[in-house]
Amino acid sequence: MEGNIHRLPILRSYRDRKKHVEDVLVRESSITIFYNERKIVTLLCTPVELMELAIGFLFSEGILSHFEEIRWISEDPERGRVMVEGCVENRTQEPVERVITSGCGQGAFLFPSEEQGENEISIRGISLSSYWISQLIREFYKRSQLYLTTGGVHSCALANEGGIIIFREDIGRHNALDKVVGKCVMEGMGTEDSIILTTGRVSAEMVIKARRMNATFLISRGAPTDLSVALSKKAGITLIGFCRGERMNIYSHPERVIFKGNGKAT
Amino acid sequence: MEGNIHRLPILRSYRDRKKHVEDVLVRESSITIFYNERKIVTLLCTPVELMELAIGFLFSEGILSHFEEIRWISEDPERGRVMVEGCVENRTQEPVERVITSGCGQGAFLFPSEEQGENEISIRGISLSSYWISQLIREFYKRSQLYLTTGGVHSCALANEGGIIIFREDIGRHNALDKVVGKCVMEGMGTEDSIILTTGRVSAEMVIKARRMNATFLISRGAPTDLSVALSKKAGITLIGFCRGERMNIYSHPERVIFKGNGKAT
Repeated sequence: MEGNIHRLPILRSYRDRKKHVEDVLVRESSITIFYNERKIVTLLCTPVELMELAIGFLFSEGILSHFEEIRWISEDPERGRVMVEGCVENRTQEPVERVITSGCGQGAFLFPSEEQGENEISIRGISLSSYWISQLIREFYKRSQLYLTTGGVHSCALANEGGIIIFREDIGRHNALDKVVGKCVMEGMGTEDSIILTTGRVSAEMVIKARRMNATFLISRGAPTDLSVALSKKAGITLIGFCRGERMNIYSHPERVIFKGNGKAT
Repeated sequence: MEGNIHRLPILRSYRDRKKHVEDVLVRESSITIFYNERKIVTLLCTPVELMELAIGFLFSEGILSHFEEIRWISEDPERGRVMVEGCVENRTQEPVERVITSGCGQGAFLFPSEEQGENEISIRGISLSSYWISQLIREFYKRSQLYLTTGGVHSCALANEGGIIIFREDIGRHNALDKVVGKCVMEGMGTEDSIILTTGRVSAEMVIKARRMNATFLISRGAPTDLSVALSKKAGITLIGFCRGERMNIYSHPERVIFKGNGKAT
């Protein structure tokens, strides 16, 4: 974790008392991603797991589809760059249509309005008990060490019915999710029917990314927006917000949540 | 506030008990800003105060400098667009160099590395007592009604030594600040030596925006990153984080904070 943090002397104050203390801050660096020698984007991020971030970003933007399309990757944290060389042309138009959000950052690879033409997809994937969801989110928060230390990052995890598989932290919600995606691509791991856990608020872009991963659950500590709920309903994703302790709000497709004694949610 | 929210039926669960309730969600819409008939950006935002958002964004991006440069503005929330017609050419290059963050969103109008060539500016502006800062942040939180209702937005305010002048809320930290900036531009109000209050984490872009406004204080409920602290030191901004109740952490230029009996912070 030391690569993620920076110790600095600060002045802490409480009721007119002041004290010089050392504080732990999360690191933020600007990293530029190049694909086939062309600059794609500059991200402000926590400068670790840069290869995962680059691959996840290129995948989320639709520039890459499989790990096999990558020839080589070179990362140079000192100069703030990751170079990716692939065997496919950049399929996206130049400049990339970019939706600058809202909450948190990166461009959506699909513009929300494009989703509107699609029919609602059939409900597939696993069902989870409310008890198991609470256990999963408990494990997720336990692992959020950088968040607990600095208060300045977001955590994101990919899980399946067996538990958490990949866990990443970054100052940006989207970067954290892209790092998870990048790890999946690098490992050749499928994300179909997966569960995505995030500490951040859920805006439309998070749902669009979850949809691209074919995830069935998107579970957050924070609040969703109305657009993210509308997109989740359309995309067949069970969206759960304010998931804390044994409490949760189920905003879409509650039929995938099973309650003790009562069977499936209605 | 009704324009900001959307009431939806959801399923609330606690310890295997479930209940159908009505929840209040913050609204999220995509809004495209056009300047002189050219599309500049699409933002996901809370769809109110769209003129302020557009003007603030154009100002933050360096496309506009004064209100007098605007010929007319037309907003069309139904179609998700704001058209701005101005008497100056878009001075920025096409496409705009955009730093996709990190935490939250919009492109920085100044790339952090550009700041590095500048000398540290002399310390100017007001000093505030730690007591007054606590009072100010208390008033700020009291006004964060949408945050309290939905848990899904960020608040931002502009204040001076007399108190809060402008207060705005949005699902995006940067949008909230841009709405504040837009309001200032529309009112012809100077922001020199002002105080910016935000509920969100402080990343480099927030400091760059505060610098462009010539603000002297940037005060947050959340955590700063190491880069935001470094930029604040260079820009002569007093950066305060974790400002809650009578507690605060002062990360840069503490000499502007006065403590009872002890004089200025050291």
